[in-house]
Amino acid sequence: MNRTNLNILDMKVAPLRVKVAHMLREEITSGRLPLGSQISEQSIAEDLQISRTPVREAIMSLAVEGLVDVRPQSGTYVFGPDPDEIVSICQMRLVLESAALKILAKSDHKEIFVQTLVDNVRQAAKALSVNLEECHQLDTAFHRALIEASENPFLIQSYHGISNRLHALRQLLPFTKTRLNAALKQHRQLIAAIKQNDIKGAQSIIEEHIANVEAMLLERLDKPRGSHTVIRSRGSKRA
Amino acid sequence: MNRTNLNILDMKVAPLRVKVAHMLREEITSGRLPLGSQISEQSIAEDLQISRTPVREAIMSLAVEGLVDVRPQSGTYVFGPDPDEIVSICQMRLVLESAALKILAKSDHKEIFVQTLVDNVRQAAKALSVNLEECHQLDTAFHRALIEASENPFLIQSYHGISNRLHALRQLLPFTKTRLNAALKQHRQLIAAIKQNDIKGAQSIIEEHIANVEAMLLERLDKPRGSHTVIRSRGSKRA
Repeated sequence: MNRTNLNILDMKVAPLRVKVAHMLREEITSGRLPLGSQISEQSIAEDLQISRTPVREAIMSLAVEGLVDVRPQSGTYVFGPDPDEIVSICQMRLVLESAALKILAKSDHKEIFVQTLVDNVRQAAKALSVNLEECHQLDTAFHRALIEASENPFLIQSYHGISNRLHALRQLLPFTKTRLNAALKQHRQLIAAIKQNDIKGAQSIIEEHIANVEAMLLERLDKPRGSHTVIRSRGSKRA
Repeated sequence: MNRTNLNILDMKVAPLRVKVAHMLREEITSGRLPLGSQISEQSIAEDLQISRTPVREAIMSLAVEGLVDVRPQSGTYVFGPDPDEIVSICQMRLVLESAALKILAKSDHKEIFVQTLVDNVRQAAKALSVNLEECHQLDTAFHRALIEASENPFLIQSYHGISNRLHALRQLLPFTKTRLNAALKQHRQLIAAIKQNDIKGAQSIIEEHIANVEAMLLERLDKPRGSHTVIRSRGSKRA
């Protein structure tokens, strides 16, 4: 477990359990702690030179978020999705993003939100040749901005309920310029459709986008790479 | 506060905080504790002859569910929705029920789920002349069954996030045979549309159903009745 680029003292005012949860969340969503891998409360406490209590509390809060599985008599593991869970997450993502698009099209604040999306795509296009990690983060931010455009706290909260897992799952996707460029192209098409009030067109772009991601994720589950061999695979529905 | 029909000893094995939370949830969703009314940790503890700790813990868990507001330096209140919150809840309800309908139409288990809905409507029709409270509960159960038919744990969990508040809000609706009969009629139309795979038809029935409820709720906020005068009303967007 590589902790070189985290500094637990950065969040000075937060309680220790919150700092530890933040650190572990970063480790999981970045892929430094691979999906399905076992995590040890004791070794984390030793590494960080803190007591086990805040580590245990952090793990409990990550369990509530669905990022770790605490299995009695076995241990604590980074969540390792099965194909059914991937299908359910992608289906829910489509429900929420598709609803957000419909709401955005009728919003009084449409222009402001569209401008946020336009700015995001401009930044991502710049990052594409320079910093793939930044481009990747801008991709995540694009979808979050779309959800926030709904201005519905219940919809935003529901997306939050799947977003950390979604973010962690992205470590299974090919991390290439080609894929990020394709995503960027779809984001541009989406903005054009929203501007023209073409809700159906926008929804079908989102549908295709999410279907692509789902297919790539399901394929990856059947072909674990390197340290990802711990992922439980029950065989894909779509195989 | 009338506690005649609750028996805290019924849930023998649950921790005290869970029993108290269950009791308060029942009081709120049934309307015995009106929306917006203040609740006192101390008087609940005294009435139940228990210490304040489990009462405080129960109130915290109801705050997470959105059923109570804990306002520092002021007190604890049953949630008192403003028009914006009602609009957001109804919008989210439409997003989730509409998505569930679409998923149900393509489900391998469609027949089983439709049978559950048919049985519910049959029971509700029987209850209509005998027991309006039972009919009301069957109405709630119909919509929950529709959501469960999605078989998507994330969608079901999101609905759970609004369902207690939805249930509590129903105390603002006219509690009449006429309204329940109208709901029953819409449920029958919905089942017919699902059977015919008419997703758009089914979705527009749900849309009309939820729009009616929303309109009634917004109207009620502007015209508080009896003990409901504590509701904060910022004036309805739709007025």
